[in-house]
Amino acid sequence: MKEKVVLAYSGGLDTSFCAKYLSVEKGLEVYTAIANTGGFGKEELETIEKKAYELGSAKHVALDVTNTYYEKCIRYMVYGNVLRNNTYPISVSSERVFQAIAIIEYAKKIGAKYVAHGSTGAGNDQVRFDLTFQVLAPDIEILTPTRDLQLTRDEEIDYLKRHGVEADWSKMAYSINKGLWGTSIGGKETLTSDKTLPESAYPSQLKATDEREIVLDFVEGELKGVDGKKYFNPIEAIQALEAIAAPYAVGRDMHIGDTIIGIKGRVGFEAAAPMIIIKAHQMLEKHTLTKWQMYWKEQLGNWYGMFLHEALYLDPVMRDIEKFLENTQEAVSGKVIVRLKPYQFLLVGVDSPYDLMKSDFGEYGEMNKAWTADDVKGFTTILGTSLKIYNSVNKKY
Amino acid sequence: MKEKVVLAYSGGLDTSFCAKYLSVEKGLEVYTAIANTGGFGKEELETIEKKAYELGSAKHVALDVTNTYYEKCIRYMVYGNVLRNNTYPISVSSERVFQAIAIIEYAKKIGAKYVAHGSTGAGNDQVRFDLTFQVLAPDIEILTPTRDLQLTRDEEIDYLKRHGVEADWSKMAYSINKGLWGTSIGGKETLTSDKTLPESAYPSQLKATDEREIVLDFVEGELKGVDGKKYFNPIEAIQALEAIAAPYAVGRDMHIGDTIIGIKGRVGFEAAAPMIIIKAHQMLEKHTLTKWQMYWKEQLGNWYGMFLHEALYLDPVMRDIEKFLENTQEAVSGKVIVRLKPYQFLLVGVDSPYDLMKSDFGEYGEMNKAWTADDVKGFTTILGTSLKIYNSVNKKY
Amino acid sequence: MKEKVVLAYSGGLDTSFCAKYLSVEKGLEVYTAIANTGGFGKEELETIEKKAYELGSAKHVALDVTNTYYEKCIRYMVYGNVLRNNTYPISVSSERVFQAIAIIEYAKKIGAKYVAHGSTGAGNDQVRFDLTFQVLAPDIEILTPTRDLQLTRDEEIDYLKRHGVEADWSKMAYSINKGLWGTSIGGKETLTSDKTLPESAYPSQLKATDEREIVLDFVEGELKGVDGKKYFNPIEAIQALEAIAAPYAVGRDMHIGDTIIGIKGRVGFEAAAPMIIIKAHQMLEKHTLTKWQMYWKEQLGNWYGMFLHEALYLDPVMRDIEKFLENTQEAVSGKVIVRLKPYQFLLVGVDSPYDLMKSDFGEYGEMNKAWTADDVKGFTTILGTSLKIYNSVNKKY
Amino acid sequence: MKEKVVLAYSGGLDTSFCAKYLSVEKGLEVYTAIANTGGFGKEELETIEKKAYELGSAKHVALDVTNTYYEKCIRYMVYGNVLRNNTYPISVSSERVFQAIAIIEYAKKIGAKYVAHGSTGAGNDQVRFDLTFQVLAPDIEILTPTRDLQLTRDEEIDYLKRHGVEADWSKMAYSINKGLWGTSIGGKETLTSDKTLPESAYPSQLKATDEREIVLDFVEGELKGVDGKKYFNPIEAIQALEAIAAPYAVGRDMHIGDTIIGIKGRVGFEAAAPMIIIKAHQMLEKHTLTKWQMYWKEQLGNWYGMFLHEALYLDPVMRDIEKFLENTQEAVSGKVIVRLKPYQFLLVGVDSPYDLMKSDFGEYGEMNKAWTADDVKGFTTILGTSLKIYNSVNKKY
Repeated sequence: MKEKVVLAYSGGLDTSFCAKYLSVEKGLEVYTAIANTGGFGKEELETIEKKAYELGSAKHVALDVTNTYYEKCIRYMVYGNVLRNNTYPISVSSERVFQAIAIIEYAKKIGAKYVAHGSTGAGNDQVRFDLTFQVLAPDIEILTPTRDLQLTRDEEIDYLKRHGVEADWSKMAYSINKGLWGTSIGGKETLTSDKTLPESAYPSQLKATDEREIVLDFVEGELKGVDGKKYFNPIEAIQALEAIAAPYAVGRDMHIGDTIIGIKGRVGFEAAAPMIIIKAHQMLEKHTLTKWQMYWKEQLGNWYGMFLHEALYLDPVMRDIEKFLENTQEAVSGKVIVRLKPYQFLLVGVDSPYDLMKSDFGEYGEMNKAWTADDVKGFTTILGTSLKIYNSVNKKY
Repeated sequence: MKEKVVLAYSGGLDTSFCAKYLSVEKGLEVYTAIANTGGFGKEELETIEKKAYELGSAKHVALDVTNTYYEKCIRYMVYGNVLRNNTYPISVSSERVFQAIAIIEYAKKIGAKYVAHGSTGAGNDQVRFDLTFQVLAPDIEILTPTRDLQLTRDEEIDYLKRHGVEADWSKMAYSINKGLWGTSIGGKETLTSDKTLPESAYPSQLKATDEREIVLDFVEGELKGVDGKKYFNPIEAIQALEAIAAPYAVGRDMHIGDTIIGIKGRVGFEAAAPMIIIKAHQMLEKHTLTKWQMYWKEQLGNWYGMFLHEALYLDPVMRDIEKFLENTQEAVSGKVIVRLKPYQFLLVGVDSPYDLMKSDFGEYGEMNKAWTADDVKGFTTILGTSLKIYNSVNKKY
Repeated sequence: MKEKVVLAYSGGLDTSFCAKYLSVEKGLEVYTAIANTGGFGKEELETIEKKAYELGSAKHVALDVTNTYYEKCIRYMVYGNVLRNNTYPISVSSERVFQAIAIIEYAKKIGAKYVAHGSTGAGNDQVRFDLTFQVLAPDIEILTPTRDLQLTRDEEIDYLKRHGVEADWSKMAYSINKGLWGTSIGGKETLTSDKTLPESAYPSQLKATDEREIVLDFVEGELKGVDGKKYFNPIEAIQALEAIAAPYAVGRDMHIGDTIIGIKGRVGFEAAAPMIIIKAHQMLEKHTLTKWQMYWKEQLGNWYGMFLHEALYLDPVMRDIEKFLENTQEAVSGKVIVRLKPYQFLLVGVDSPYDLMKSDFGEYGEMNKAWTADDVKGFTTILGTSLKIYNSVNKKY
Repeated sequence: MKEKVVLAYSGGLDTSFCAKYLSVEKGLEVYTAIANTGGFGKEELETIEKKAYELGSAKHVALDVTNTYYEKCIRYMVYGNVLRNNTYPISVSSERVFQAIAIIEYAKKIGAKYVAHGSTGAGNDQVRFDLTFQVLAPDIEILTPTRDLQLTRDEEIDYLKRHGVEADWSKMAYSINKGLWGTSIGGKETLTSDKTLPESAYPSQLKATDEREIVLDFVEGELKGVDGKKYFNPIEAIQALEAIAAPYAVGRDMHIGDTIIGIKGRVGFEAAAPMIIIKAHQMLEKHTLTKWQMYWKEQLGNWYGMFLHEALYLDPVMRDIEKFLENTQEAVSGKVIVRLKPYQFLLVGVDSPYDLMKSDFGEYGEMNKAWTADDVKGFTTILGTSLKIYNSVNKKY
């Protein structure tokens, strides 16, 4: 009896090659699996399934882990206002770990001896797949024909042809990866330092022209309403917001950062809903959290994003950070008003019962019942004591 | 002989009242002084001087500390990419400390027994003035008639009238504070949580309409060239950039944050040059610094901004942070290309001899001479070791 | 009808003066209350009660909040290995907040219009009491006769005599404050920088001489067993350990640190059980937590200790930190062997099912099944990539 | 002509095998080099040189980098009070990088094509050597026969015998590594979790019995005097202190921590002078630095130690941290009194002109001229404002 391999299959050239190669050259029974974290529609999944069977997959499955991805990841990225290098919502790379987890769990379930992925040896994804597979199933061996053989596209296409697989493998000008939390765009300009992507490279073209205000409704840090419509499932709220905002061509930018393997990498992205959600959420927090909650959230949120990006999602410190972040969200409820304009969005303001600006203790710039001028004088005197001592001893200033 | 008081004089109603009050009621010889950190033009200063003498100032001086403010503060805010709450370039509040230092040094120089300022008891500035005065001159007593008497505007105007001072003290719709590092705008909407400032509230109205690309030239972290023109003095470069960018109405936003006295405060601002400089500088750093340099710069830069904002500029930890930040800038040289559009600017890219993306070690997504696929496999195996051990012991996943 | 004041009463001179003064001079009905966080024994409490009634207390209560103090504070100090300035287990000051909370809740319960404490204007405790009272009951007015009148001890004694209260108010050579989490010792040498407390200043004198090994049993970060005896309530375990360890005169040191009011302060302490628990707990964590869990725990634990010390226990960020710390403790279970010697204790080692040193993945210094020499070579190559790039671009080394 | 290899030679079995193997099997001209960071005495170096020539070294050199190691590393470890996991002064591992730098610079100087070291594949040192070599000389190939061949000790001894090299290669019960900054001890108990090293395992046995007080003199953070004797070179001061303190058998402990390769490792050490210096220096800082200087020093010092330990000394962030640390030391001058006892030392106190405890602003617990009770009341009111607002809005407490 042939031994089983589970192949993370995307329908692309590399994984199609792997499917055939693992069957023909390695004599394995190939189980193809695609883990959907919200980036694939029904039709796409059907096309991929069809391709898989054409390649001789013993069985193809589409594992839907969108809810898991939201519950175990997106939610915390919102709580933590996670933007890599202050810019990138970790649009696609954050999905990889959850795809890897789904794939390896499936492999364990069907008793596969091997697991395979089609990542090359030059990027971050191989680390995410390998590391997650190894931690969750140290006894399942990882096969990576694409990485090991280092074939050109033409060589892969030839191999597939020789084994009776014909398809349109023509390469797009840009490599596009669409997910629930944004779309990444690589190619041409992203390989330079001094050019930005042209308008045409972005999948979502500008379609809306009228300025429009929308209201986002957050409940304990999660998006639960858009423009008055409530959503029980925040995933639907994200999709609703994306449908409204994407035509404004907002949430686009270029990210330049450190890859897991130590070199700098650049990537374009568009992520209308994620960028609006994070910025709106953060503004709501400025009104509802104390200064030191924001201080520590920023540090822990940054770390969370870094480890997520760098394949270290499974480190238990991530679970600890999640507990911290979750606990901060208790009062992060309320409405955020956002103005959409072509290529731009503006945070108008917030309306929240937990708004710390609106209390009985008076507002900035007005004297009030909570303290007197003498209190502030006393405060300043004590606040400055250590500096007065320092300067009296050190005569620095 | 009368005792001397140095009054920080701005020409406004509060400090005009103080000038007269200190002379008439306290019997002091009033020396008025204005410390210019780059926000006042020649004409304004002359108007203020004239007013001062009309109020009976024994002597009026304009202390120009623009260079000091740049060298000891703005420079480090750029190195540290300092934005309060990820938003606000600390446009005006950062100037207060340097104004306070100039005032108190002048007071010491002329042997004044008192120093006075016109801040009310409701804001941050009183803390900045008091604390700085106290640290630098614990023996000079601070007088603050405005804060202590808590008079209304009308009462102050009446008092001045009764003492022969007539002027147009009509209040503007918004309180505007212009400085070298941006203009703050307070009033109406800033007292709410859910409204943003109207277009008309911003001093710099949109005048440019054509898209335009400009090139910023950084030398070791400082802006030294704009569009091919070199500037020996970065202050001139800032002013040149402001002249180009302000007509695009960019760098505007609302800041909501924690005041020194513990309540939340909101303020609008426009800061075309500062926002472009900080964002461009930060992008250049993403290309030229290592990951951990950026990590620590972000933390220390945030702290620097917080302490600057909160009147704690004189804490010696600030000098230590400055040394750190300065040392990181050695390789932060090169050009940054910025595209200006109405209400928006876009970072196109960078061109730097220190760009870590452009090395012999290959680029992201391409296999290269610096490592092999097996190296990455080995790396991943070791990177994941601690997690494998953790999971084998704890069986969490 | 007289208005009620609740006085935090300790039986000492200052609070005895306050009791009489508030009744006689202010015409208030004085309710005395002592909040016991574990530092007072039954007899002491009875003596204090007797004194209170002699002073004319309308009603005296002893509020036992030992369990609350453990559950809401000590527990987290252990999780966070909290030592101020790497030295001080925050022995007494951490209790103040919980005493303040108990007092103010009692005041609210009985409908008191005032609350009073006997702290002077020179220390940290006044801030802890005032701030906690104000946050929890902004409408109850705080009275502090000791602080306001600034009487000498003799003046207070005279006043009490004149009102018929005679007692032995003789001052001890050192001011001793005993609590569940250690005893602080102030006086003489603590007012200097260059002397340490003499042997005689410590309440727990050396009584044991034989070396002895004890085994501490931690369950999810809490001490639940000492030398084989299990304790359901960790407070009893702490007390049992204290009984064993105190005769060894261990856990003594001098703490020098920043007070809330900005000056440096020095204090001696002895805290046998707390010091052993924290050090043993920390060693157990070194075996059971990942590197980054320890990294972040250290930072958050330090902050927790600082805010606790500085009267900011009620900041919601403290609740967030608690969630983080608690979540890290899941695997912090096992035995820690401790050797006791006169004036010294030594951590021998740990024995835990969650020990990450003992896994199937091999041990340090031995090659093993989990990776090969080539894996480490690959790891090193990738780990060094960013530095190789940096150096090839910058030619620094 | 044969190609040159520089071999990092220690005189031990592994590197002796390498010397013969590289010459015989690889046909290389073997240059042996030992980089002394202060751990080797003159005699030892001569013995090693003799051995090297017996093995057929073309040329043997002893590179003395003690001063470099002090200036570029120990100094900053003292400034940063660096103790790994709050315990370990990074006694030996910190030297490796400087040995590697000296070796690779020598290899470049003599135009070697290869560089070799004798580390196995199971420890941290291989990473330190490989990474440093690669960064500083990417074109010199690294040879590691010991790691690659994985021979047993007996196989190595046999090989050497067969090639005419006889010596006493008997293994010690413990592996001892002596350096300027302490001695590490591995073996037996360090491979367990629950046992500590026996008295006999420590090279420095207890010889002193009388209690003794010594005075350490720090100048801007560096040890420049011991017991009244001044040292121009801090290395001599360290050695003088070691001579006094080692007979007291102090500065011993067990370190358990994360290795570079991801597993936990345990090691014993004795480091009398380093431990006393770090603890004394830290106490002096508690008297001379502000709270926030200590706060940030602790974080940056920890990071410095971690990167030093983990072979990342060459990351430029380390240079930035060094600037920060150095700048903090300006006022860290003065005397620290230390009491030595068998197995224990005690910090008595400090005497410094920069002592912030001794100023005109009064001392803790005493009312003073710098502020009034009302100032503290005002301070507390303002300090608590944000919490009062938080609680009035959220009703949490």
